[in-house]
Amino acid sequence: MPLLVVGSVALDSVETPTEARDDVLGGSAVFFSYAASYFTSVRLVGVVGEDWPHEHTQLLQGRQVDTRGLQVVPGAKTFRWKGKYLPNMNDRETLEVHLNVFGQFDPVLPEAYRACPFVFLANGSPRLQLKVLDQVPGARLAVADTMDLWIREERDELAELLRRIDGIVLNDSEARLLTDDENLVRAGHKVREMGPKFVVIKKGEHGAMFFSRYETYVMPAYPTEDVVDPTGAGDSFAGGMMGYLAERDDFEPKTLKEAMAYGVLVASFAVEQFSLDRLRQIERGDIELRMEKYRQMLSF
Amino acid sequence: MPLLVVGSVALDSVETPTEARDDVLGGSAVFFSYAASYFTSVRLVGVVGEDWPHEHTQLLQGRQVDTRGLQVVPGAKTFRWKGKYLPNMNDRETLEVHLNVFGQFDPVLPEAYRACPFVFLANGSPRLQLKVLDQVPGARLAVADTMDLWIREERDELAELLRRIDGIVLNDSEARLLTDDENLVRAGHKVREMGPKFVVIKKGEHGAMFFSRYETYVMPAYPTEDVVDPTGAGDSFAGGMMGYLAERDDFEPKTLKEAMAYGVLVASFAVEQFSLDRLRQIERGDIELRMEKYRQMLSF
Repeated sequence: MPLLVVGSVALDSVETPTEARDDVLGGSAVFFSYAASYFTSVRLVGVVGEDWPHEHTQLLQGRQVDTRGLQVVPGAKTFRWKGKYLPNMNDRETLEVHLNVFGQFDPVLPEAYRACPFVFLANGSPRLQLKVLDQVPGARLAVADTMDLWIREERDELAELLRRIDGIVLNDSEARLLTDDENLVRAGHKVREMGPKFVVIKKGEHGAMFFSRYETYVMPAYPTEDVVDPTGAGDSFAGGMMGYLAERDDFEPKTLKEAMAYGVLVASFAVEQFSLDRLRQIERGDIELRMEKYRQMLSF
Repeated sequence: MPLLVVGSVALDSVETPTEARDDVLGGSAVFFSYAASYFTSVRLVGVVGEDWPHEHTQLLQGRQVDTRGLQVVPGAKTFRWKGKYLPNMNDRETLEVHLNVFGQFDPVLPEAYRACPFVFLANGSPRLQLKVLDQVPGARLAVADTMDLWIREERDELAELLRRIDGIVLNDSEARLLTDDENLVRAGHKVREMGPKFVVIKKGEHGAMFFSRYETYVMPAYPTEDVVDPTGAGDSFAGGMMGYLAERDDFEPKTLKEAMAYGVLVASFAVEQFSLDRLRQIERGDIELRMEKYRQMLSF
């Protein structure tokens, strides 16, 4: 089944304790799309400026990513983010944010996208996410990401969003902020009580947790020595997870759990290089090989 | 097979964001012994002062814990520790430490203990741990814990210890400190290269990692809403792990992995109340029930 994603498309500048990269391909919708493209065809909605290198669009088109929804605004600049990772490679500081054309992003979905059954609302304000949701009334599974900024500044809109979506993906500090509860198990269920059928809490190097009315579980991260750049790990996780659900065309508990594992594994590749560099080297078969090792790791 | 443990026996005062307890039963060897007692008979070596409530000794004797090695020093006071947990319940501050009689602890093993095939060197200086090791020349599996204090202050002795033991259990921040590497996977293997056949890194609420020459894996913590007091979680983990190995009387890779899981589960109970309160309520069957749920959680 095709999978729709709406989110940021960016040029990132990233510093790690040992290396740096400037103006590399990034953005939530980009990481998500590439990660999902191992599993299903993706329909991307985003906006860029005229400084956007066309080769980035071609890269996505070379996968199963439909870029008709990627608007190029003449005379405008692409969203830029600059960040620096602390030595633990888990925490980061944002050094610069230039929203540029993303600041006025008002997504209008191409007609061909509106019947998409699987929908992911990546990084963006709840207000914007709600507008997208209005354009996909037939979505069978709508899942959103959110951020600390929106929890602080658009809490009412976020509350409305939570009532309207099927699933939410957020990180541990965001779950704590949203629920004012330090215990992640309680926090996860409190978010679920705000509306969505399921909640996924991303814990960075510690993996991800899943909460539904009937289930609570943890998936550890795949242990890797080569954490070069964690940027986009969360979006790659979501892309792997949603991509697998769309491929399987269901979201039963069993499928959701497998999808969580695929998310964890795609993210484990994504962090091994800057930008999409590592994902560009791998094929579905590499993910399946790592899946075998992951299953072995978790069985005893 | 009997299991020997040498370590601290203490009276703890604990503050959490919601509750506090004064002078409750604690200490690494106590948590370890109780946790191991679900699986095997334990021989405890430790020291207390004359303020030590005899009922604590009786409690341990009521399990399979041999307390002939628990020395009571007249006129002396028991080791006391006072700590306060931060709202995240993972980080803590030590408010007071009174080593008291533990400061002069010089363990001499009862003759009957010296043939113990399974040995755990709980909290104590590497110098002291080495002295114990000299008294159990026939140990088939010797595993030690260590602490940031010893990594900073007795690094040479710790290096010697690492060359002489089979396994080491330490927490994430200690592994980073010991290896000067922020990546836990690399840190785990670096510790292993210092001597022990296997290394276990405890990650608190995120579970534990295992490293041997041939294996690297992660076991997530059992997700619980009821984290009341994390004191002793690491020692309970080690007790569950070593207790199971002693029960099974082997330490093949497969058994070690099961032992890791038992460690995770016993620790998940231990944190649900202060001191040993939760462990005192459960039986082996409760651990097995949780094991079934844990296996289910990790299979997909």
